[in-house]
Amino acid sequence: MGRTELEVLDANDAFYRAFAARDPEAMCALWAVDHPVACIHPGSDVVDGLDEVLASWRAILGSDGSPHISCSHAEAHVLGEVAFVTCHEVVRGSGRLAATNVFVRERGAWRVVHHQATPIAAGQARPVPRRGPAN
Amino acid sequence: MGRTELEVLDANDAFYRAFAARDPEAMCALWAVDHPVACIHPGSDVVDGLDEVLASWRAILGSDGSPHISCSHAEAHVLGEVAFVTCHEVVRGSGRLAATNVFVRERGAWRVVHHQATPIAAGQARPVPRRGPAN
Repeated sequence: MGRTELEVLDANDAFYRAFAARDPEAMCALWAVDHPVACIHPGSDVVDGLDEVLASWRAILGSDGSPHISCSHAEAHVLGEVAFVTCHEVVRGSGRLAATNVFVRERGAWRVVHHQATPIAAGQARPVPRRGPAN
Repeated sequence: MGRTELEVLDANDAFYRAFAARDPEAMCALWAVDHPVACIHPGSDVVDGLDEVLASWRAILGSDGSPHISCSHAEAHVLGEVAFVTCHEVVRGSGRLAATNVFVRERGAWRVVHHQATPIAAGQARPVPRRGPAN
């Protein structure tokens, strides 16, 4: 795995640290400000634009019902100055989601421009990464 | 809307024309061959790598149970030589999904590197695009 992939996986880890800590300000600080952003939360329509995306995260992370999430199976796919990570979101007591996080290199850091998570049906999740743990 | 956004939306339209036509070869021809690719079908785990992704599309589009899909609400988000489109997939008789398609400019054309679709819960879909039709 190259240095860029590791940088992208570090950014993905920061995303899930903010999610796990239910820290809206940490989450909001990770999103790109110079590029178009969007987000698709499970079961919801597309959220488009920075103001709406950040408001959606503040609502989720500020809620008592915010899920307890951890990340596994992360794999980085680098496309020059943009990269996307696919991973599992492990929801305590509620199975797994397959997620995509798209990052762009902005002002020297990898910033999030898009997030989508989809529940994995029972029995469909791979038990272990096929190419070894990526994080 | 700029020329690049229109090019990306054209590529997104081609993706859904191949899907609607249940044409595996047309679908497979749209995917990038020089960049890492992945795909997250609804309810499924991540499919990673070109061979597995194309095999998944051949299985879906070659199945009698392949869904009848049309696209609406498409919006392009350009990040230099990479772009992502968010849109609705309207499934005949079965509601809507919120989808992401990620494209990269490869050999002069916008090619697909990632697709993910998530069912939108009843009552959560926007009835009309907020900024006018994008396609």
